[in-house]
Amino acid sequence: MSNLRHITLPKGFQAAGVACGIKASGNRDMAIIACDRQASAAIVTTRNQIVGAPITWCRQILPRGFGKARGMVINAGVSNVCTGKRGLVDARTMAGETAKRIGAEPQQILVASTGVIGHPLPMGKVKRGIAAAAKALGRRRDADVAEAIMTTDTRRKSAVVFTSIGGKKVTVAGIAKGSGMIAPSMATMISAVTTDAVISPAALGKALKAAVGGSFNAVTVDSDTSTSDIAAVLASGHAGNDRLTASSKQYRKFAAALSEVCGELARAIAADGEGATKLIRVEVKGARTDRQAEIAAKSVANSPLFKCAVHGCDPNWGRIAMALGKSEAKVAADKLSIRIGETLIFNRGAPTKFSAKSVSKYLDSDQVDVVCDLRLGKGRFTALTCDLSREYITINADYHT
Amino acid sequence: MSNLRHITLPKGFQAAGVACGIKASGNRDMAIIACDRQASAAIVTTRNQIVGAPITWCRQILPRGFGKARGMVINAGVSNVCTGKRGLVDARTMAGETAKRIGAEPQQILVASTGVIGHPLPMGKVKRGIAAAAKALGRRRDADVAEAIMTTDTRRKSAVVFTSIGGKKVTVAGIAKGSGMIAPSMATMISAVTTDAVISPAALGKALKAAVGGSFNAVTVDSDTSTSDIAAVLASGHAGNDRLTASSKQYRKFAAALSEVCGELARAIAADGEGATKLIRVEVKGARTDRQAEIAAKSVANSPLFKCAVHGCDPNWGRIAMALGKSEAKVAADKLSIRIGETLIFNRGAPTKFSAKSVSKYLDSDQVDVVCDLRLGKGRFTALTCDLSREYITINADYHT
Repeated sequence: MSNLRHITLPKGFQAAGVACGIKASGNRDMAIIACDRQASAAIVTTRNQIVGAPITWCRQILPRGFGKARGMVINAGVSNVCTGKRGLVDARTMAGETAKRIGAEPQQILVASTGVIGHPLPMGKVKRGIAAAAKALGRRRDADVAEAIMTTDTRRKSAVVFTSIGGKKVTVAGIAKGSGMIAPSMATMISAVTTDAVISPAALGKALKAAVGGSFNAVTVDSDTSTSDIAAVLASGHAGNDRLTASSKQYRKFAAALSEVCGELARAIAADGEGATKLIRVEVKGARTDRQAEIAAKSVANSPLFKCAVHGCDPNWGRIAMALGKSEAKVAADKLSIRIGETLIFNRGAPTKFSAKSVSKYLDSDQVDVVCDLRLGKGRFTALTCDLSREYITINADYHT
Repeated sequence: MSNLRHITLPKGFQAAGVACGIKASGNRDMAIIACDRQASAAIVTTRNQIVGAPITWCRQILPRGFGKARGMVINAGVSNVCTGKRGLVDARTMAGETAKRIGAEPQQILVASTGVIGHPLPMGKVKRGIAAAAKALGRRRDADVAEAIMTTDTRRKSAVVFTSIGGKKVTVAGIAKGSGMIAPSMATMISAVTTDAVISPAALGKALKAAVGGSFNAVTVDSDTSTSDIAAVLASGHAGNDRLTASSKQYRKFAAALSEVCGELARAIAADGEGATKLIRVEVKGARTDRQAEIAAKSVANSPLFKCAVHGCDPNWGRIAMALGKSEAKVAADKLSIRIGETLIFNRGAPTKFSAKSVSKYLDSDQVDVVCDLRLGKGRFTALTCDLSREYITINADYHT
């Protein structure tokens, strides 16, 4: 993550991240991303049945998951969840305050919030923070914005992809915060993506949904799902390309760029999971369907036993076979093969004669790839996760409310 | 756990546990439980799609899950899983060797195995172990048997319940090993229960299934499911009561006694989960159905965030609400209430004003009760688990194969 620009690289966007005192640490905790005109907008939100007020707000202003918006305001430090009616009023106030300062309507502003839950937002600080961030628009490093949405993340996360649509340069850029949690809160994943592509809201919604499926929804740090997860994308339309719809020839190219940005952010989130020392990619292929591949891959990626084994650099194929077998996806032991890195360690129901030492050495790296071939069909999915370390326990047990 | 008798208290049973060198530690690793006649027998086995050869063997000899048997042989140290055709031959050999020495047929002997997987059993040692155990029948403490089936369990686990069926004294006793794992193995739960009740195999099967649902199947240490899990019960019929069938008046009384034994063993397993410092009971009531209550309760019991919070004595209702909300069971935040111990900490969608200090003090004990009332129906379920500690990581990461 450099200090260079990223989310303001697509034409038409300004952004700022400031500190307004919500975080006790005094770190940055308020971010605004603003577009100079009505942008096409799309969101994908948490599947948790219990949701924070900002999620409710975003669903109200974009009931179909896509539409138009002018910007997004995100605070960290206190998450506006389980705060009753007041929570919804506060979310609306955040939208209103932001709208006022960038010349928009409240219902044109997306809202997200992450941090400690069950406490009302300190609205005095929030309002002053929004005012300060709005004032700083265009005068701040994009890195400040990526920083202002962090909770226990140890690194800022951003990604940029340049592509060409019908001869016009199109930029897609994004920031994200990961599954770091602050007790007594939950994992929260927030991502904001900007682009200057000219694209219909419906097509943008479709592209985001597809991108999220293979990226943010492929990440699992500990199987827990936040009440505040949101991925949002704003498209300013300044790139000058022919307007994309879902049936445009060039749609796929844009969707691929968006997927690439989301994928890079998702990998950064997994690698920065609480206490993580390495990124683990679990690919399942040969499943009956893609959905079955996803279920099987996530069963492995969520297995504490597997994640501990990788942490300890133990080439433990038994735990991988177990996690596949316990899932609801169809698995047949006598057809199953498992690779760790390049090494085949389990082949059609029996362990191979592999060098435990060399596989253990491979596991002792920043990124570990596990490939499971079920040989039952053509379904495939890659889940992203991290290892499970003592540090995870420390972060999540030793913090007292 | 005392050194007194337990599984040989029901009339007609002998048992022995010896060391035969499968465990490198030299600890006991071979157990036989034998009945002096054909006993009614029932088993419940793992739901994992990948199963060890002993599970395949037991399903072969009791294809309906109940029938007749003379005894059970259990080894620890090396688990006979993912060992191909040789594995099944070895399981049959264990049954045969045991049968020969107690005057039975191979297909009358249940087999179970736990320990490192993917390695063939050292059959020389196994045979000598079976011979030694058979020789020791009736001359060993029952505690030796409970010890011989342990892996990373820190305590032997046993339970006895006395009841009266139609004026006849009936004893139900059991031993279990828990979800301690030996890398590169998996959690394995094995339980053997003996009783002298006179009962039909079908009724015994029904009673075991019911007992397991609320006990062993309610336990979750880390959501991982073994390839070798088995609960077995043998009924000698020496108690002299009128033969029980599923429609007998007294059937419920027997079923309750069996449930009590299984429940006590299950709680002992949860409390002795790897790295556990406390037993956690998560009760969900007011769910739409019992099945939904089970899904919701297990979602909480499997949440690493929740388990870390309990480990750290943090009264973190947010993580409980999150885990309920992410489950597939129907949950409505505005109806939900959560109690930790006696303290209402979340009521119909909002946190209460509770003393964090006193709840934190309550959490700092050997047993923690969490009760979630969904207020959507009459379904209820209690899941059993333990806290998640650094020790879990140490046990499962630092052991190298």
